[in-house]
Amino acid sequence: GFSVGGGDTIPVFSVGCPVVFKAHSAHPATSEAVGLCIRDAALSTGMPEGVFSLLHGNAHSAGQSLAAHPDIKAVAFTGSFYGGKSLYDIAVKRPDPIPVYAEMGSVNPVFILPTIQKQAKSVAEKLAASNLLGVGQFCTNPGIIIIQRTADTDQFIETYSTVINAAPEQCMLYPGIADAYQSSVNELINQSGLQQVGGSQGNKNGFAVPVVFSTTASLFVENKSWHEEVFGPFSLIVVAENEAEIRTVAGSFKGQLTVTLWGSEEDEKQLGQLSTICADKTGRIIINGVPTGVEVGHAMVHGGPFPSTTDSRATSVGSQSIYRFTRPVCFQDFPDTLLPESLKNENPLKIWRKLNGELTKNSI
Amino acid sequence: GFSVGGGDTIPVFSVGCPVVFKAHSAHPATSEAVGLCIRDAALSTGMPEGVFSLLHGNAHSAGQSLAAHPDIKAVAFTGSFYGGKSLYDIAVKRPDPIPVYAEMGSVNPVFILPTIQKQAKSVAEKLAASNLLGVGQFCTNPGIIIIQRTADTDQFIETYSTVINAAPEQCMLYPGIADAYQSSVNELINQSGLQQVGGSQGNKNGFAVPVVFSTTASLFVENKSWHEEVFGPFSLIVVAENEAEIRTVAGSFKGQLTVTLWGSEEDEKQLGQLSTICADKTGRIIINGVPTGVEVGHAMVHGGPFPSTTDSRATSVGSQSIYRFTRPVCFQDFPDTLLPESLKNENPLKIWRKLNGELTKNSI
Repeated sequence: GFSVGGGDTIPVFSVGCPVVFKAHSAHPATSEAVGLCIRDAALSTGMPEGVFSLLHGNAHSAGQSLAAHPDIKAVAFTGSFYGGKSLYDIAVKRPDPIPVYAEMGSVNPVFILPTIQKQAKSVAEKLAASNLLGVGQFCTNPGIIIIQRTADTDQFIETYSTVINAAPEQCMLYPGIADAYQSSVNELINQSGLQQVGGSQGNKNGFAVPVVFSTTASLFVENKSWHEEVFGPFSLIVVAENEAEIRTVAGSFKGQLTVTLWGSEEDEKQLGQLSTICADKTGRIIINGVPTGVEVGHAMVHGGPFPSTTDSRATSVGSQSIYRFTRPVCFQDFPDTLLPESLKNENPLKIWRKLNGELTKNSI
Repeated sequence: GFSVGGGDTIPVFSVGCPVVFKAHSAHPATSEAVGLCIRDAALSTGMPEGVFSLLHGNAHSAGQSLAAHPDIKAVAFTGSFYGGKSLYDIAVKRPDPIPVYAEMGSVNPVFILPTIQKQAKSVAEKLAASNLLGVGQFCTNPGIIIIQRTADTDQFIETYSTVINAAPEQCMLYPGIADAYQSSVNELINQSGLQQVGGSQGNKNGFAVPVVFSTTASLFVENKSWHEEVFGPFSLIVVAENEAEIRTVAGSFKGQLTVTLWGSEEDEKQLGQLSTICADKTGRIIINGVPTGVEVGHAMVHGGPFPSTTDSRATSVGSQSIYRFTRPVCFQDFPDTLLPESLKNENPLKIWRKLNGELTKNSI
């Protein structure tokens, strides 16, 4: 969704600004092909020369040079915490600091409340499928599942692990991602307090293999390194003994792109409490669904508090994403002839406007 | 407008967040009196204890400690470039960076086009009165006037200087501001290329005295130090020889809170060109008015590109100022009972909402 012609490019065009795009070094030819399409489209519709530029380069240095360039006025980025934070650090130290919209890591916690576990098998199958989607490489991949122990919890873990065990080894986007996945799994695999309940060693013949660990709520809250994203088909199931432990785990999370709550009508009070806690932690809360589907619509918020992004006020998906590249300007006492089209008295664009505090499409 | 009970405090309450206010050390008793009113109002309306706190402290260190505190999630500030930028630099280096809305310096350029100068006397009187307002201590004070030379330009300068010369010495807000004003005037007073055309030496018996300099457009563009704000009743009149020089000067400015254009109907083409250039430089453009009145309304933008503020996306005056302290959250597939009031199907708050892309007050 965020490559050359994606959700970080189109919103910039939508507000009438040019784009300089740093292509990912893992797929230069695809990037170039899409970039040429955009250039041709720009030329054939009479847009100015230079409205779109595509740069290739290894590692982070090309993007970092762009973030420091005086002609660049805002940065959008999707990728790792290291990559996004380094752009942010450069942009805020410029003589003229600029906004950086970096969408970075997220473990996308999923909370499973007691009575919904009567449907343990179905819930486990849905979540495992979501975790395996795209070899676990969606930024909204559900990486940590917190379940409040009931008589049905073992059934949940068993079903979840069964689905994961049945998944074939798969090819990740590029070798660097597969290496990082393997290395993260290796670091966790012999840690005391983590029990492997599904999957194997993270790698088979160079392909990624899903992995599931489990632990207790109290150990999870103490071990901050387990809160970090493992990018790939990885899950950690955290078993909480009671409501209080669920709340403690919820409160322990850093900023997230999504939080998902699973509960039945009987869990309603607890769902309400958790959604209040989690609204402070995330840009999107889902009830009884999976976080991996990100609808490009008006209500979408694909963003969240640091460190899931560098700017929690923005969404990088959906129609509101264009506001990342805007800035308000007040035109005071202008004659109608000199006003921008959007502000002319007769409302030639027929848009909604606020007039004396009331929204209207009327002319003035 | 921005002290204890002002435009940086009320918007935070409006969105349901608590405020910790660092009072200015120049008026601790007034700050304390207003702070006690706020505390009493909070108690008598059943608001939670701690919804408002007032801190006193010298210099910048108290504010800087607040900007670094993990429980602080956003900073609003009105004052000097040094003060605001230091808060920004602290906030962006936190383990979890937070937004800083610092409204800092601005010279608020005023452009006077040719044919409007037939009314030179009236324009000069209005601008000089605006410059003298509040002993020149409004952040929107018109500090630099750029005039395109016509037969009427001398009349403009003469009238402007006459009004300034007639102004009495006045007391500034506190000794530090008066000292800084005097020191800035002293630095400029013997610089080659600057001609004093009104006022005296900036100080009389400890009170501030207005000062007017003039220079040419070409010298002004070269001397970047003359683009800096002199906080107080100071004006620099820049005389441009033609339209091209006017445009060059307009393009040379850093980010500003306001830009003002004076022109008649005959100047319309030039007004259009200049407003396009200046829309990239400022948060508010005024035609044939003065920048010192800042209406608290829906259309106000009191903000602008760096260095006038640290966040050009925000206004610190008007109803839109509350958005500085908000962040979007998407509630996906929530049952109606668990949705916030603002999102419940029946629209109990009777607010405007976007439904499938259309604004409506209807229930769903």
